[in-house]
Amino acid sequence: MPAPADFLKFVDGNEEAFIQRLASAVEIPSISGDPVHREDVFRMASFLESQLQAYGVETKSVPLGSHELDGQKLQLPPAILGRIGNDKSKKTVLIYGHFDVQPAELSDGWTHPPFKLTRDESTGRLYGRGSSDDKGPILGWVNVLQAHHDLKIPLPVNLRFCFEGMEESGSEGLDEFILAEVKKGKDGWFDGVDCVCISDNYWLNTRTPCLTYGLRGLTYFKITVSGPGKDLHSGVFGRMVYEPMTDLIALMSKLVDSSGKILIPGVDEMVQEASEEERQIYEKLDYSIKDVEESAGGSIALSDDKATVLMGRMRSPSLSLHGIEGAFYGARQDRDPREGLREVQHPNVNPLVISYIESEFKKLGSKSKLVIEDLHGGKPWVEDYDHWSYAAAWRATEEIYKQTPDLTREGGSIPVTLTFAEALGVNVLLLPMGRGDDGAHSTNEKLDKSNYIEGTKLLGTYLYEVAEGTKGQ
Amino acid sequence: MPAPADFLKFVDGNEEAFIQRLASAVEIPSISGDPVHREDVFRMASFLESQLQAYGVETKSVPLGSHELDGQKLQLPPAILGRIGNDKSKKTVLIYGHFDVQPAELSDGWTHPPFKLTRDESTGRLYGRGSSDDKGPILGWVNVLQAHHDLKIPLPVNLRFCFEGMEESGSEGLDEFILAEVKKGKDGWFDGVDCVCISDNYWLNTRTPCLTYGLRGLTYFKITVSGPGKDLHSGVFGRMVYEPMTDLIALMSKLVDSSGKILIPGVDEMVQEASEEERQIYEKLDYSIKDVEESAGGSIALSDDKATVLMGRMRSPSLSLHGIEGAFYGARQDRDPREGLREVQHPNVNPLVISYIESEFKKLGSKSKLVIEDLHGGKPWVEDYDHWSYAAAWRATEEIYKQTPDLTREGGSIPVTLTFAEALGVNVLLLPMGRGDDGAHSTNEKLDKSNYIEGTKLLGTYLYEVAEGTKGQ
Repeated sequence: MPAPADFLKFVDGNEEAFIQRLASAVEIPSISGDPVHREDVFRMASFLESQLQAYGVETKSVPLGSHELDGQKLQLPPAILGRIGNDKSKKTVLIYGHFDVQPAELSDGWTHPPFKLTRDESTGRLYGRGSSDDKGPILGWVNVLQAHHDLKIPLPVNLRFCFEGMEESGSEGLDEFILAEVKKGKDGWFDGVDCVCISDNYWLNTRTPCLTYGLRGLTYFKITVSGPGKDLHSGVFGRMVYEPMTDLIALMSKLVDSSGKILIPGVDEMVQEASEEERQIYEKLDYSIKDVEESAGGSIALSDDKATVLMGRMRSPSLSLHGIEGAFYGARQDRDPREGLREVQHPNVNPLVISYIESEFKKLGSKSKLVIEDLHGGKPWVEDYDHWSYAAAWRATEEIYKQTPDLTREGGSIPVTLTFAEALGVNVLLLPMGRGDDGAHSTNEKLDKSNYIEGTKLLGTYLYEVAEGTKGQ
Repeated sequence: MPAPADFLKFVDGNEEAFIQRLASAVEIPSISGDPVHREDVFRMASFLESQLQAYGVETKSVPLGSHELDGQKLQLPPAILGRIGNDKSKKTVLIYGHFDVQPAELSDGWTHPPFKLTRDESTGRLYGRGSSDDKGPILGWVNVLQAHHDLKIPLPVNLRFCFEGMEESGSEGLDEFILAEVKKGKDGWFDGVDCVCISDNYWLNTRTPCLTYGLRGLTYFKITVSGPGKDLHSGVFGRMVYEPMTDLIALMSKLVDSSGKILIPGVDEMVQEASEEERQIYEKLDYSIKDVEESAGGSIALSDDKATVLMGRMRSPSLSLHGIEGAFYGARQDRDPREGLREVQHPNVNPLVISYIESEFKKLGSKSKLVIEDLHGGKPWVEDYDHWSYAAAWRATEEIYKQTPDLTREGGSIPVTLTFAEALGVNVLLLPMGRGDDGAHSTNEKLDKSNYIEGTKLLGTYLYEVAEGTKGQ
């Protein structure tokens, strides 16, 4: 069933308050990957917990232990759990989201201070780190809660929440917690969950809402090549000694070629060629080469063929060279490059990568030293979209956006997706709020105001459509 | 003739004051490559000028115009000229040195604050940025001036000084000034100069003083590969678009191999193979593989053969990959690698490098954009060491150190050397003060106290030995 008209009206009438809520959240620089900002992640957890409590949600802040970051031992941010409703006749939906963000500095090229929500009235854009990834979506749920609370309308389903503060840093501590909590059965917070809904990805383009049923996995390596005990003068030592930077560049050049082909034998081959039938799926998506180039900000698509480009993102592994440091003023002494490999279906890719790099390094015949670290990863995931939760999201999208959604798979990873799917044995839906050009992880991240407001309506409507679906189907 | 005993005694007796002088200079962070420190370079110029004036040297601070650095228009530091003595019966020696330094930050791995001279009493080392490169040597000359001033002994030669503050940043503005000043003939500050002496390099090892008669040139490129309008999420865009980092790594891997061989066709070939006779020169130098590995801080020599390793530094071109940036927290958005090529004798190497990189880039077939910038350079130089100035330095070394000096060529560049040689048409001598493990341009730069004190005696004694040589020979 569609959502009540009062709910939709409430959302429209409270646009300003909802944007203010997002502004308050963006102001907290909850960067999980930077020890300096760890307290801010805790602050953001408290902010979110109090918002949930204000609208009648019972909450629990779960300590997840400690870890080491940049040589410091730090407390992990807590997971914030919530529950509201315990009506056996209703379905129970578990909502996941994260309240931590990627780093951002004005000097990276932001046109506005990243931790102040800046409204562009002419375009309707709300700029700020975390606006789209993932504070906008989680506050969309809070908006839904507020509407029902203030209007005194009962929620159509029971809701459970699991919000974390380490998603941008490998979700440390969360998997173990979820598995332990699920084991508790009736005594656990996830008891009775019928499906999971996650809003932490994006539309394919800027026009068409989508439902997402697949994610690539991620495996993230750091390669360190070292040799001298200190930085050396290239005039004095050049051509006398093995130079780590030369070896490192040689190694990195053997991982992937310009066209995106992965040079590590066996990795590309893990994925079967697409059949003509599967190719048709990608042909049909509302997407163009112009879309990818507009969101990338350059005419740099790997092909002129739309299906090829989409399959590159949705069904092929990719290997990106993420960063490298060496011999710069202000840079660290060690060479410190990272390499991110997005895989599709083989969790056993890591030994392949490591042994290849080691063997290529041996071929160099250098006296430099090599260390390969496997930093963190996320498993790939594909869901069955022929399910009542997807059907509910499909109908909700048609009601709010008057459009048929795309059915997509994503190139990025949300590691917890598979954990929920496996641990709870229920369907997981990715229901994005933002657009393909939101710039998550990049400079000038934004969320369109219309996506925030209509997205809030979509989340609420989805719950009503879920309530109508056959339980346990 | 040897220096007067009183002079040598004065130097020993004023050790503390001389070290204090060096400490005052090290405290001024005169980093020429950093706009933030440009005022400090000016401060260092004034400090030096007042020191020269205090001991009777007539000085002139010469403005060298302005330049652009990191997008800012900045005044170049002045050249400090000095002259003392105008006795036609004496030889006239021109001393060159520089008062700017390389960048240094404690966080780079310094064990002491880089801009505070720190004495290690157990080893006799004086740690600090610029201690050896090049504040120690230029203050060595000031020490010599003070000794003669305080003792009221006339100097055995006429002295001219030319000190600059942009050596670590390509000596901008200096060449033009020197050429113009030389053109003035009798009205110029360099009129009547018989030879040039520069103390701005190092012994080959930690034991044996040396005289240096050759330098490699330098040509310094920056390669920028760009594509997207902003940093992109590798999950979302990986294998959809051409990635600048992949292209950049591919390009850089085609410049030099692990063994130091330059892969740009024609560059290595510009230098003839060494004859067996020339090889003997390197065999005889007081130098071992252990020396290079000790000063590099690792067992990383390119060969076990001493002559091969020494020729790599002294007579072969080298290509080092100096730095690279991309897609890091806090790093700039553009990819920003640098490549330094040390050449031996062909100033025409640049077009070769540029066209090779362009053609290799074309082969990649990428839609990324390539920009190659030729940042700055220095010409290679080889001097005739069968000259009275070298003979004077040889005798002075034997008198002070009781050792026969090595005759060396250096891998690094001091661009002004060739300018003086060509513009004045006189012999140029490199007479180093510091040791091979001083760590110029690196962390924990130091000057041994004994090198500073004995080096001051050496510089003074050299002047007496010059006075004895046949003028104009």
